Amino acid sequence: MNFASDNTVGVHPRILQAMADANDGAQRSYGADEYTTRATAALAQVFDTDLAAYPVLTGTAANSLCLAAMTRPFSAVLCHSEAHILVDECGAPELFTGGAKMLGLAEPAGKLTPAAIEQRIAGFVRGEHDPRPAVVSLTQATEVGTVYSPDEVRAIADVAHAHGMRVHMDGARFANALVGLRCTPAELTWQAGVDALSFGGTKNGAMMLEVVTFFDTALADGFEHHRMKGGQLMSKGRYLGAQLEAYLAQDLWLDTATHANAMATRLAEGLAAVPDVRLPLPTAANEVFPIMPRALFDRLQAAGAVFYEWPGMGPGTDVVAADEVFARFVCAWTTTTDEVDALLAACRD
Amino acid sequence: MNFASDNTVGVHPRILQAMADANDGAQRSYGADEYTTRATAALAQVFDTDLAAYPVLTGTAANSLCLAAMTRPFSAVLCHSEAHILVDECGAPELFTGGAKMLGLAEPAGKLTPAAIEQRIAGFVRGEHDPRPAVVSLTQATEVGTVYSPDEVRAIADVAHAHGMRVHMDGARFANALVGLRCTPAELTWQAGVDALSFGGTKNGAMMLEVVTFFDTALADGFEHHRMKGGQLMSKGRYLGAQLEAYLAQDLWLDTATHANAMATRLAEGLAAVPDVRLPLPTAANEVFPIMPRALFDRLQAAGAVFYEWPGMGPGTDVVAADEVFARFVCAWTTTTDEVDALLAACRD
Amino acid sequence: MNFASDNTVGVHPRILQAMADANDGAQRSYGADEYTTRATAALAQVFDTDLAAYPVLTGTAANSLCLAAMTRPFSAVLCHSEAHILVDECGAPELFTGGAKMLGLAEPAGKLTPAAIEQRIAGFVRGEHDPRPAVVSLTQATEVGTVYSPDEVRAIADVAHAHGMRVHMDGARFANALVGLRCTPAELTWQAGVDALSFGGTKNGAMMLEVVTFFDTALADGFEHHRMKGGQLMSKGRYLGAQLEAYLAQDLWLDTATHANAMATRLAEGLAAVPDVRLPLPTAANEVFPIMPRALFDRLQAAGAVFYEWPGMGPGTDVVAADEVFARFVCAWTTTTDEVDALLAACRD
Amino acid sequence: MNFASDNTVGVHPRILQAMADANDGAQRSYGADEYTTRATAALAQVFDTDLAAYPVLTGTAANSLCLAAMTRPFSAVLCHSEAHILVDECGAPELFTGGAKMLGLAEPAGKLTPAAIEQRIAGFVRGEHDPRPAVVSLTQATEVGTVYSPDEVRAIADVAHAHGMRVHMDGARFANALVGLRCTPAELTWQAGVDALSFGGTKNGAMMLEVVTFFDTALADGFEHHRMKGGQLMSKGRYLGAQLEAYLAQDLWLDTATHANAMATRLAEGLAAVPDVRLPLPTAANEVFPIMPRALFDRLQAAGAVFYEWPGMGPGTDVVAADEVFARFVCAWTTTTDEVDALLAACRD
Repeated sequence: MNFASDNTVGVHPRILQAMADANDGAQRSYGADEYTTRATAALAQVFDTDLAAYPVLTGTAANSLCLAAMTRPFSAVLCHSEAHILVDECGAPELFTGGAKMLGLAEPAGKLTPAAIEQRIAGFVRGEHDPRPAVVSLTQATEVGTVYSPDEVRAIADVAHAHGMRVHMDGARFANALVGLRCTPAELTWQAGVDALSFGGTKNGAMMLEVVTFFDTALADGFEHHRMKGGQLMSKGRYLGAQLEAYLAQDLWLDTATHANAMATRLAEGLAAVPDVRLPLPTAANEVFPIMPRALFDRLQAAGAVFYEWPGMGPGTDVVAADEVFARFVCAWTTTTDEVDALLAACRD
Repeated sequence: MNFASDNTVGVHPRILQAMADANDGAQRSYGADEYTTRATAALAQVFDTDLAAYPVLTGTAANSLCLAAMTRPFSAVLCHSEAHILVDECGAPELFTGGAKMLGLAEPAGKLTPAAIEQRIAGFVRGEHDPRPAVVSLTQATEVGTVYSPDEVRAIADVAHAHGMRVHMDGARFANALVGLRCTPAELTWQAGVDALSFGGTKNGAMMLEVVTFFDTALADGFEHHRMKGGQLMSKGRYLGAQLEAYLAQDLWLDTATHANAMATRLAEGLAAVPDVRLPLPTAANEVFPIMPRALFDRLQAAGAVFYEWPGMGPGTDVVAADEVFARFVCAWTTTTDEVDALLAACRD
Repeated sequence: MNFASDNTVGVHPRILQAMADANDGAQRSYGADEYTTRATAALAQVFDTDLAAYPVLTGTAANSLCLAAMTRPFSAVLCHSEAHILVDECGAPELFTGGAKMLGLAEPAGKLTPAAIEQRIAGFVRGEHDPRPAVVSLTQATEVGTVYSPDEVRAIADVAHAHGMRVHMDGARFANALVGLRCTPAELTWQAGVDALSFGGTKNGAMMLEVVTFFDTALADGFEHHRMKGGQLMSKGRYLGAQLEAYLAQDLWLDTATHANAMATRLAEGLAAVPDVRLPLPTAANEVFPIMPRALFDRLQAAGAVFYEWPGMGPGTDVVAADEVFARFVCAWTTTTDEVDALLAACRD
Repeated sequence: MNFASDNTVGVHPRILQAMADANDGAQRSYGADEYTTRATAALAQVFDTDLAAYPVLTGTAANSLCLAAMTRPFSAVLCHSEAHILVDECGAPELFTGGAKMLGLAEPAGKLTPAAIEQRIAGFVRGEHDPRPAVVSLTQATEVGTVYSPDEVRAIADVAHAHGMRVHMDGARFANALVGLRCTPAELTWQAGVDALSFGGTKNGAMMLEVVTFFDTALADGFEHHRMKGGQLMSKGRYLGAQLEAYLAQDLWLDTATHANAMATRLAEGLAAVPDVRLPLPTAANEVFPIMPRALFDRLQAAGAVFYEWPGMGPGTDVVAADEVFARFVCAWTTTTDEVDALLAACRD
């Protein structure tokens, strides 16, 4: 019953096998290998567009380097108040951007809205004493398991672009968002106005695979240098290329995400039926965020379930009472129906 | 006949197997897994001392984060004029340290000397207009395949410490240096005054494995944050831990380095016997740097040999004539005697 | 009727004269002049303690360099949500600190409280994913004209120190805060637990005079380098020294602040008597923040009064209705009773 | 007999008077005052072109902010090995640029050459492991008192532009260079291909006056933010504007520079006639760099002459023997013929 995170589980066998298969012989280093070349082409095909793609090693680096390419040191990045770039990366974006400001907007359900963005932009009244708004960063799926529809992305992108800003999407769980929305990768990104995407694979079955992806390829100018200077150019790059190739091949990435989402839905539906448990947010990807009695929380933990009390929700979604816990359960590509059912059974005990 | 680099080859089967073996089940993320715990303990045993060790993903990051922990933004780092931190990392140390100065000393054979360091320190006469000297960084083995003996390291460390500076060792090829010197890891590092080591594994058979290692554990204060902020905290950390464990187990790391060095020695001895080829530097690790006629260089390339003309040598080791090339051949854990002999045969053709 | 800011007015004649008097002959550059030496000694006498003091050229630089000396790149600085370092300096602290996080707490009346700080510190539950809390920064007087009593400073400092943090005071209007509180400079700073102070003079009659002041002199280690690297070492330093010397001599700084505060009090009392105008905050220094009908606001502007609608107040002090304005009036050392009375007369017209 | 530096002397009376004259009444802060507006227009007239000009407070800041506007974090700046930005600013350019590399070329007479720049650019063979060359920075007058003619500037700019780089001129002593060359400000800058200039006033009679000047005004995009974030936006900006206005009025800046240069020429001619003293470099501005016997150096110092042994000359200009000193004498707008003659008399004693 481990619902701690989608990064506590292993690597999908087909990805692991692809890495092993790539092991023989010499390959050019630093990303000039044939695996990376093929994988990057495959990614362009998946997104049905020209793009510039740069595999890196961690999600924090993917986000920070994306933002470094989209900003200047005096820029501001607007994001949700619970965004990973704001509260989970120890200030990595500030380091990689040379001191840009990450500005969080506390909106319900982990989601930015066009109105909130407009209002924040209107607040830049201090001239050069304010940073200059440069990027809106969306998290897809959000930190609380919700998603932006293509229309919602488009509406936000329209606001951003109207103000000369660019749109970044933190897609650490992009696959999970995508399969729930039943749209194409293109519809959810560049067709909706996304300029750059942190395309995540690690949480969805890869070992370490995050791809800085520029749909506006002008943003890629100099990015090889950015990646190198950021310590993110893997010398034996073939193992990133092989992961990406296997991840995309035969829609593996969609299958693993579909499975994780299905497990989350099963879990959510089960939890909703547990007395005194409620789900303040829709379960749109692979995470479930119930509010539950602390007594139940403690009982589940004692029964061996691994999951966390969650520090942040943003305002307006619900009120957590003093004897309650806002908890997070993450389903992964490895989660089984048995695990879900065991957890639900433990709830009923 | 591929002598391009030790990062164009694959991963040692025992390391790859260890990664596969670590794949099952849940493990705590972000380095709190059991593999990393065991591997770190094993590293302390290898070095026969308490130490603080942090696996990271690239050599550039290992160096830059080490230096970030050892400096303040106004610090100076003294290194060789051909040091990787100075000429191969696109300014990553400057980024991670908040703008510290890397100051290169052009000394023969890729090696700093106590006298050169003393002289450079004496040149800090401009008060606060100069940066404050904080670190001496040694590359072991050096960028031109030479090594520092424990006595040489100690002599340099004594100078550094006498001036209140710390000693960093860039050990991207630490194993190759070590096995040639026939001393213990402890003798070559903390017993000789090294405060921090970038302990490299990638070039010697790992996939991506560099370990920031502090012998002065006071330097580790806050380093978890540094690593996170630097985008170098691998979420599925077990795969770093598993690499390190396998790398050290049964002295695998010494065996692969010993093999690579032996191949380099065989190659060096063979090249020395080729007319008009000379070796201006001793072959002390796994790299050979001959000066050869350009005609021979071109002929070997045409014959399919993969190796590079090398941009930097530092002064005083020899003069490369106009019709000559300073070339680099790197042997790896995969290099075979057949490959070496084929190259030598091609020289004689 | 110019109440725009205390930096739109000129320099006190005694300070200007001191600068002119310092003009003759040669003086050692870069702060080694005799004026700076004497002035720094005078500052130590004013604060009745040993201290390390470094004049710099702007308030933003003073704050940013103070914080750079008190933090590491992965640090967090807790401040009020309206603090100058957070919302008025275009991210200068992030630049000078190498990417530290400024975290704003939205508390009433522009003032941090021990409870709010404790609560925020308790929220650092993400380990290395969070920055490490290092500094509490107080603004004295605050951005909305309120002040912290010595007891309030002490209570906050106790919390900070208990958590291993240091206390910075942004004293751009330190003199104004001090004279209202009728305590000594020592009582309001180091005796109350303040470790470092941005001691401001520009807003209180100087030309450009901000002094980075460390009561914990260990924080000054290397600060000459920090100041130089930050572009804040004035080559003709005598003109900073002369300003500081004249500013402190014969309590000029207290007299100018006392006058400005008195004008603010006169203005506040007058405004409080104007129908439909209310003062949600006490007037404790040289700024007055009334809530007034927009019609009155517009009328005063049309009558030639220069003052601003103010963007930020922080929560909980009062509600500004749709037809109202939260306005700021700043009195300076030059403000006259005639100006105040003319403004009040204009209100009554 | 004070020849220590041109920043150990005071402010020209006309500039000081202009600052005093600007003292009355209210002025908009942060550079929106009428003095700055007029002065900036005057500067454009002096350079006979549209330009974007931003007064700042120190020369180090002017250079660093100029370079920040012209680079990205992964950029390289080529400069002379003795350039102020490389050896005198404690790494300020690295801080303000987010970690760009300053790369020094050791060429004779303190001057870069087109050939040396071409050769260095040709050395960028490491792809993204190298920084990307972005700027050539010239110092005019150089650190050893020599100057670039307009033709020399043009030849260097042509090389830079051909490689997609921009040209920065560090003009801390721009006036001194200009008056010696008998050309117009336009001829020496934008007409010769200079894109940005640090226009210095402090060393030539101002108090603190350095103007970041963009001839390519596209470089000015966002520069207000850069200046603010860099802590260089003076709140009482009128005192910068007043200095600049007086500095340019009635060619004061040319007169003070002409005087200082004349004193240097007188000194150089006198020194050249002293036995065992030689001048390895032409005296083209206001500095004289003789090589003299140490015995004479010591005797002059004992006689009360204030001047320095100089740490850097660059290669190839001459050899300083063991019993000799490479010394620097700086003449300022205040230097008198009596001072010069007294020094020369002391040489002959």
